Amino acid sequence: MTTSLERLFNPSKVAVVGVSADPTKLGTVVYDNIEKSGFDGDLYPVNPKYREIYGKKCFSKVSKIPGKVDLVIIVVPSIFVFDVIKDCARKKVPYAVIISAGFSETGFEGRKLEEQIAAFAREHGVRIIGPNCLGVTFTDSKLNASFAVQAPMPGNVAFMSQSGAFNTALLDLADNRKLGFKYFVSLGNKVDINELDLLTEWLQDDSIKVIGAYIEQFSDGRRFLDIIANNKKKPIVLLHSGESEAGKRAVASHTGSLAGSANVIRAALRQYGVIQVDSEEKMLSALMMFSRSEIPDSNKVAVITNAGGPGIILTDHLEKNGLELAKLTAETSSIIKKSLPPAASIHNPIDVLGDAMSDRYKAVLDTLDKDKNVDAIIILLTPQLTTQIEDTAKLIINYDRRTETPIIPVFIGEKYVMQGLDRLWSNQIAAYQYIEEAVFSLKQMVAYKEFTEKQGRRSTISTTPGRSSRQVRSFASENEEVLKEEITKDICKEVRMDLPREALVSTLEQALDFRKKAGTPIVLKAVSEDVVHKIDEKYIYLNLDSEKDVEKAFKTLYKKVSSLVSPAKPRLLAQEMIMGGVELIVGVDREGSTTTSGFGHTLLIGTGGIYTELYKDTALRVLNITKDDASEMLAETKVHKILTGYRGQKKLAVDKVEELIMKVQRMVNFYPDISSLDINPLIVTEDRAVAVDVKLFVKKR
Amino acid sequence: MTTSLERLFNPSKVAVVGVSADPTKLGTVVYDNIEKSGFDGDLYPVNPKYREIYGKKCFSKVSKIPGKVDLVIIVVPSIFVFDVIKDCARKKVPYAVIISAGFSETGFEGRKLEEQIAAFAREHGVRIIGPNCLGVTFTDSKLNASFAVQAPMPGNVAFMSQSGAFNTALLDLADNRKLGFKYFVSLGNKVDINELDLLTEWLQDDSIKVIGAYIEQFSDGRRFLDIIANNKKKPIVLLHSGESEAGKRAVASHTGSLAGSANVIRAALRQYGVIQVDSEEKMLSALMMFSRSEIPDSNKVAVITNAGGPGIILTDHLEKNGLELAKLTAETSSIIKKSLPPAASIHNPIDVLGDAMSDRYKAVLDTLDKDKNVDAIIILLTPQLTTQIEDTAKLIINYDRRTETPIIPVFIGEKYVMQGLDRLWSNQIAAYQYIEEAVFSLKQMVAYKEFTEKQGRRSTISTTPGRSSRQVRSFASENEEVLKEEITKDICKEVRMDLPREALVSTLEQALDFRKKAGTPIVLKAVSEDVVHKIDEKYIYLNLDSEKDVEKAFKTLYKKVSSLVSPAKPRLLAQEMIMGGVELIVGVDREGSTTTSGFGHTLLIGTGGIYTELYKDTALRVLNITKDDASEMLAETKVHKILTGYRGQKKLAVDKVEELIMKVQRMVNFYPDISSLDINPLIVTEDRAVAVDVKLFVKKR
Repeated sequence: MTTSLERLFNPSKVAVVGVSADPTKLGTVVYDNIEKSGFDGDLYPVNPKYREIYGKKCFSKVSKIPGKVDLVIIVVPSIFVFDVIKDCARKKVPYAVIISAGFSETGFEGRKLEEQIAAFAREHGVRIIGPNCLGVTFTDSKLNASFAVQAPMPGNVAFMSQSGAFNTALLDLADNRKLGFKYFVSLGNKVDINELDLLTEWLQDDSIKVIGAYIEQFSDGRRFLDIIANNKKKPIVLLHSGESEAGKRAVASHTGSLAGSANVIRAALRQYGVIQVDSEEKMLSALMMFSRSEIPDSNKVAVITNAGGPGIILTDHLEKNGLELAKLTAETSSIIKKSLPPAASIHNPIDVLGDAMSDRYKAVLDTLDKDKNVDAIIILLTPQLTTQIEDTAKLIINYDRRTETPIIPVFIGEKYVMQGLDRLWSNQIAAYQYIEEAVFSLKQMVAYKEFTEKQGRRSTISTTPGRSSRQVRSFASENEEVLKEEITKDICKEVRMDLPREALVSTLEQALDFRKKAGTPIVLKAVSEDVVHKIDEKYIYLNLDSEKDVEKAFKTLYKKVSSLVSPAKPRLLAQEMIMGGVELIVGVDREGSTTTSGFGHTLLIGTGGIYTELYKDTALRVLNITKDDASEMLAETKVHKILTGYRGQKKLAVDKVEELIMKVQRMVNFYPDISSLDINPLIVTEDRAVAVDVKLFVKKR
Repeated sequence: MTTSLERLFNPSKVAVVGVSADPTKLGTVVYDNIEKSGFDGDLYPVNPKYREIYGKKCFSKVSKIPGKVDLVIIVVPSIFVFDVIKDCARKKVPYAVIISAGFSETGFEGRKLEEQIAAFAREHGVRIIGPNCLGVTFTDSKLNASFAVQAPMPGNVAFMSQSGAFNTALLDLADNRKLGFKYFVSLGNKVDINELDLLTEWLQDDSIKVIGAYIEQFSDGRRFLDIIANNKKKPIVLLHSGESEAGKRAVASHTGSLAGSANVIRAALRQYGVIQVDSEEKMLSALMMFSRSEIPDSNKVAVITNAGGPGIILTDHLEKNGLELAKLTAETSSIIKKSLPPAASIHNPIDVLGDAMSDRYKAVLDTLDKDKNVDAIIILLTPQLTTQIEDTAKLIINYDRRTETPIIPVFIGEKYVMQGLDRLWSNQIAAYQYIEEAVFSLKQMVAYKEFTEKQGRRSTISTTPGRSSRQVRSFASENEEVLKEEITKDICKEVRMDLPREALVSTLEQALDFRKKAGTPIVLKAVSEDVVHKIDEKYIYLNLDSEKDVEKAFKTLYKKVSSLVSPAKPRLLAQEMIMGGVELIVGVDREGSTTTSGFGHTLLIGTGGIYTELYKDTALRVLNITKDDASEMLAETKVHKILTGYRGQKKLAVDKVEELIMKVQRMVNFYPDISSLDINPLIVTEDRAVAVDVKLFVKKR
């Protein structure tokens, strides 16, 4: 699957099937676009109706073209597509882009046809992009095989999209900002080539600086993550849409409903350093930033502004986004003071005042450039009476060429500032019209920087099957089932999970004896198999301390259970009561068992007990994770403050919780049929993290 | 203070002091701008240097101008301003706009001068806008007395700003969108006329549809709210900047630190229906929406799109913002089905497909218009091959004229869609370039609608002083002090707050007797005066049930306290223990005692106990509120779910909590010297809401 797509991206011979004498037909538009884009290979029009078209020999079918054809663009009605693909197979064409619509997006019949074509093509080695797409543009090969009204400019961005309309909108926005693309691919129905194929290629291509993607459904979430993890690193900006629907799906286990599919996707992508956006404006802003700016060393930002108010608004947004105003060195401040009028503010944000011409911006830039505390510079400009918009733009362009510190101009306005913005964009500066766009984009760069710094943490996956594999598998079926309590406990013990000490007791003496040995109050409860579906009555007695308490509870419970198991003799479960701890919840859910995104097992940890669903104070990761990740997860929760000694209280066994997380992960690796797991509560005391109630669910993978 | 500003807004005679022969000087720019704007009154240049200027007689001072002068614009160096104001006073000029800078914004000297001028002007009846401002524009009077590079177009928006640069940036953005203003005022240093004066006028002006404001410091928060409450209603869009700084201020009481100044401002403004934005882009988007669209009846939105992907993105944003996709009637669906090709999606969002020309939009609009389930329509367009951008714009313009349902076009793109957007904007349609802008603005409209529906709830303020007023006042000083426990309890009883039953006990017999009468376990503790600053040892024993427990605790505590109060005989406090309830916190803080925004007393309620600061699960209001508001506050918190019977548990006394909130409010009205109050915990059981620990702080007002 990871064959290089070299011949796709750099084809020598390209054919367009469906060129017609009518210039408004899609096939003709695509053919025209390829001609106009200056494609330097050979281009062949194909249509059995014509012998010659637009001054060129027209072929009746692809197989009539002499020599090897690398790429065929298909723009014929859907009912003819299969024939064209068969012809391509005959000709041993390696790649086809099916632009034609009328397939799975239209319903059952279309889906059937699409599947037939896909199966045939797979068998005969024809790899397909589409169907139902806008086409592809590879600017390096000067090939614009698309019916979009605009052609992307060349550049260092690679972009793919499951929505053709998103492509066209982004193109129109990018055009204005002179944002260029090396690849611009409309994925369509993804019958064969999908985001995984392109990502694999693009991550290894050094001429690409940033990858953008609009995705509605992940073809394989787990593989998506693995490709990111195992390939050369570069920023990926991704818009995953349709998240509002996802939450509605009914999920069986408690954990699942907390995690929710959209949350899982968001957590998984963040874990792997993917930059996530939720709108076309943010996609554009982030792509422009990563395409043009260097990644800053830190979140320390200096601001130069000719506008007090907007400077304050910018400061608010910086803080809200975790970016910091750099503390300027004394030297910087003293030089700036000399260069600016007395009324100017020499603190960060540096206010060069409303009447500033470009020389004041220059004086400050000269100094900031040398300040080691400054890792990014935002230049705010509003159009005032004496503002030199174009001169300031020129100045910024010069500085940007000389320095590695990202310089981000924000020229707020429209008509008056546009000439400045145009100049900046034409010179490949990441300039913005609105404060929020700039701050959002810079924040993404800083977040990416932080991600790359903690990278390298990999967790090896154990594939050793657990000792109880046979028992577990016998439980796993098409439906999710609760695993038997005995097996659950065996498995927990296998990974050395800390469980409450317990004993089966048949007599009061045994119960009292257990109480004595336990050294803590105890719990008496019915064995779970005995009371399945008996939720209306009380079969559990907590906090039994004195002999009297134990006796009273034992007798009552014994009587109740007798009537259930008669004529067998009842057995009761005595457990130590874990005192004075904090309740957490730990959950595992196998994504893909309930949704299609398939990110594999996810692990959730957070506040347990009655507050679990109320505060939804949780952290989420896809497995596998390292112990550092486990520690980071805990630190993300609010309950972490309590664990680490909240308001003068004692510190609890955080290390034991981290160990427990790793044990749970090991368990899931040993028993991949585990579809979900709930530990609620996990009680954390000063020296233990005890899994008081563990439920395991299994389901065939 | 609420004198009408009629002569300011409609002056007959205007003088500009500081016009010069140099056309680049600010005074000349302002004078030119007034001339160019076609002001229909008389305009007088003033400068002692000239006898004639720009073909007109030039006056040496304002007092030399014949007849009554209504408005003087002052653009001279700061050191000459006082003299001009004195001359204005002599001439009985009612209004002056001081554009000149060099006052309080520059430091101590400037502030002194500004205060002198302000005091003099107040005494002599000259009302001032500024100093240090951009000027004012009143388009009805065709008066553009400002040095901004652009003049606002006429329109139904009134805008004021504490930042001149924000004004200029907004003007440039508004110009492109043909957004017009009736008033456009730069407030400057607000030495006299401030947001309160303008708001009072503008709220009563029927020709204004929406008011916009950029505010850095509120001149008087409480009055700001009162003006909104007592005047004719219309939407106010407000950007309050500098909130990131506010959080840092140290606030004495627990409640204060939870509330934080920025939170208070946000809560207060929301409570009074103010639409809050945090950036120039959102200010522009919201002003345009309110200026041009009718307020929708509900949050039910229909979406028409020629782009599947962007349609999904839009849907995500609608849901995220609490807006709903309208459920189309069966009739609508069946008509739409007939009008569109089979591949189109006839569900909401309605996908008219990428090859849609304007006729498909028309067919759908025709039908939606009649669907009673639809209260707003968003029309999404991306530039595709056959898209008729201008025709679709024309179509929308026609519909907008005919219907009261807000129609919001979102044309995503730049170069290709701009002609369409231009046409829409020129025809005063609230059209957007980005999905997020449109959804944000529509959400504000819906929120405003919801606010107006629940308006009318007013709470009368009791000004009766409480019975303990003298005692409280004797405690109140310049610093915040904790009120004595005895007085605190008196005050609590005065408003009939539910406190734990308690008794002072000096003997074990009394303690046992109290236990018997209480009927619940009890608490034994030292009287607070006895143990001030004794936090290291245990002076409180909880949950004493058996005689043995009471005896043991009594004896230990008695001994400890003896050593403290010797030779006096110890008294201990016995209290009933409130069992099995949920802990809330109730707090009051007097804003203005710790910050300058002065929104008066705020009340906070939320999760109490150890989770208070952890989850910050609170709701906040400024006083006074109604019982409905109290109920709404509770419903905002997460702990509300527990109070109303969470996961099958019993319902708790929510009504008693609401009553308690009203009692606290009454208390604060009786004793306005109360600067803050903490009830933590307030224990809520099935039939009570008991204020277990009440702390009152007082401070002179």
